Amino acid sequence: MQLSKQTLNQPLNQPIEQVYDVLVIGGGAAGLSAGIYLQRYLLSTLIVDKGKARSHWMQELHNYLGLPPNTPGQDVLKQGKAHYLALEGDYLNGYVQTVIDEGETFAVHVQIGRKSPTEAVFRSRYLIAASGIIDHLPKLDDMQNVFDYAGHNLHVCLICDGYEMRDKRAGVFGSSESSLEVAFSLGWFTPNITLFTNGEFDVGQELRDRLTQKGYRLVEQPIKKFLGENHQMTGVQLSDGSVVELDTGLVSMGSKYHADYLKGIDLEYKGGNLVTDPMNRTSHPRIFAVGDLKLGMNQVVIAAADGALAATQIWRDIRRAEGTRRSPLITAA
Amino acid sequence: MQLSKQTLNQPLNQPIEQVYDVLVIGGGAAGLSAGIYLQRYLLSTLIVDKGKARSHWMQELHNYLGLPPNTPGQDVLKQGKAHYLALEGDYLNGYVQTVIDEGETFAVHVQIGRKSPTEAVFRSRYLIAASGIIDHLPKLDDMQNVFDYAGHNLHVCLICDGYEMRDKRAGVFGSSESSLEVAFSLGWFTPNITLFTNGEFDVGQELRDRLTQKGYRLVEQPIKKFLGENHQMTGVQLSDGSVVELDTGLVSMGSKYHADYLKGIDLEYKGGNLVTDPMNRTSHPRIFAVGDLKLGMNQVVIAAADGALAATQIWRDIRRAEGTRRSPLITAA
Repeated sequence: MQLSKQTLNQPLNQPIEQVYDVLVIGGGAAGLSAGIYLQRYLLSTLIVDKGKARSHWMQELHNYLGLPPNTPGQDVLKQGKAHYLALEGDYLNGYVQTVIDEGETFAVHVQIGRKSPTEAVFRSRYLIAASGIIDHLPKLDDMQNVFDYAGHNLHVCLICDGYEMRDKRAGVFGSSESSLEVAFSLGWFTPNITLFTNGEFDVGQELRDRLTQKGYRLVEQPIKKFLGENHQMTGVQLSDGSVVELDTGLVSMGSKYHADYLKGIDLEYKGGNLVTDPMNRTSHPRIFAVGDLKLGMNQVVIAAADGALAATQIWRDIRRAEGTRRSPLITAA
Repeated sequence: MQLSKQTLNQPLNQPIEQVYDVLVIGGGAAGLSAGIYLQRYLLSTLIVDKGKARSHWMQELHNYLGLPPNTPGQDVLKQGKAHYLALEGDYLNGYVQTVIDEGETFAVHVQIGRKSPTEAVFRSRYLIAASGIIDHLPKLDDMQNVFDYAGHNLHVCLICDGYEMRDKRAGVFGSSESSLEVAFSLGWFTPNITLFTNGEFDVGQELRDRLTQKGYRLVEQPIKKFLGENHQMTGVQLSDGSVVELDTGLVSMGSKYHADYLKGIDLEYKGGNLVTDPMNRTSHPRIFAVGDLKLGMNQVVIAAADGALAATQIWRDIRRAEGTRRSPLITAA
């Protein structure tokens, strides 16, 4: 059964009766992979997706086993969603506002639609937090100028795209002194590095000395705009009109964690990331975290594996608790 | 640089000078994914593959995010190998016999060729054990009769293929009393289960009672052959000529671990599996284990993620030890 638009647009005074086995928040790589595994374990699943997963922005996924190295991130998501829907998983475009732990179930409050939004409440026994992160980008007056290059040759992930930056003139765009440290790892791939503060923070003498020692340049003037065409950034124009030519860039400004809906539940975090066990269970026995939200590397293939692990553990939990497949699913032998 | 046949066929009294950063033993999903990441970290890699990875036998990979659910396992390996070779990783068909820990390096003794094999020794700083496992299959007089169905509807992995077995008449083929326990998990997918001992081991009263309670049948006669056509098994003929009709089967006879070459090195195991940390490092600081050899779930997507994790940790190790990219790789700024 697909969750139809009609089901969702019913008035809130007609509560939705079904309790899903698992509600997955986020339809990116981790959430879709979890959904595929869950449906194949014959568990009922609802994925609620707000759209625009981090991998949605990736123009080319260079390191995902089994796919050509120029596969757009969107293609993986599209194939994964079709795969999940073919397994009859429910899927809803919506924004999860709050999760309330009711003991046996979670009540998940979802805002649906943008212009005249409605709210619906869904219930599930388990929750998988797969809503990920999104990278902060340089704040310029014209943000479209940033979006034109982000995900093309203005990268956000050194592990993903360091190889593409090798031996190139690279800019590093930071948001704090510590965020500039990534330049030293980028130095593995290219010796030609210019760091930009966009005039937003100070850099101490110790870091200045280390940059000088490596031959890296530091630019502290505000950035006026990125230069380039056809999504290929060719440099930066500063506030005084001068130009720094670049072949590529790396944004290192931290991330927004999409997990506000978990605020009411006491969970263990490290930094912004949820701490999990090897099967991706959080400190709450019925909440799992997968993909970029959890502690670990932010890679599409790891997110996909995370989904498989969490789904399998939930299946084991339910199977062990119930002993056998539940009656609505049993057909005559 | 591809490793050419000539390099390999040189006499053993001309030792191969190159020390690879990483030698990966096994060119299955885990090894290829590691190789792709390693080459993208600009580390020198040699994959030695004996052929016939476990996923090579999978007719359809149903649960790998980003690929259609009827993708043959071979397609993933083929794409992965092409991807790795395009990144200029070295690849060799050969069988690793022994690994000797020389302190700074490993000496890896490889047998090349089958008819008139030669031996070559390769050296590397790190080792990734990615040589996997292979499932034991029922031992019949005519093994071709088993191979005809294995990987088609005679499955070896409940997590992978339980969904395909739902509500079907399923046979479970065990090699010991404890190996039959999988039937109770299979019971999640189908209530119609017949267990086969092939006359090779006894079943105690306690298990018999539990099987009876579930309505499962136990067949203790030796199996003469599998019946079916076009790789679709339709049942089993027993030694007395009687036939048990089946729609599908699950082999649960344990696995052979392809890790004999590690025998001379003291490593921590649990069962046949290598124990690793979250980045897949074994108890030896320069040996990593990925995929089915390590403790955890045997899934292609998890193997692929394993490779990414191990490669990244090795890169971090080398980068931190060396501080910067090595001189042979540095080009003028």
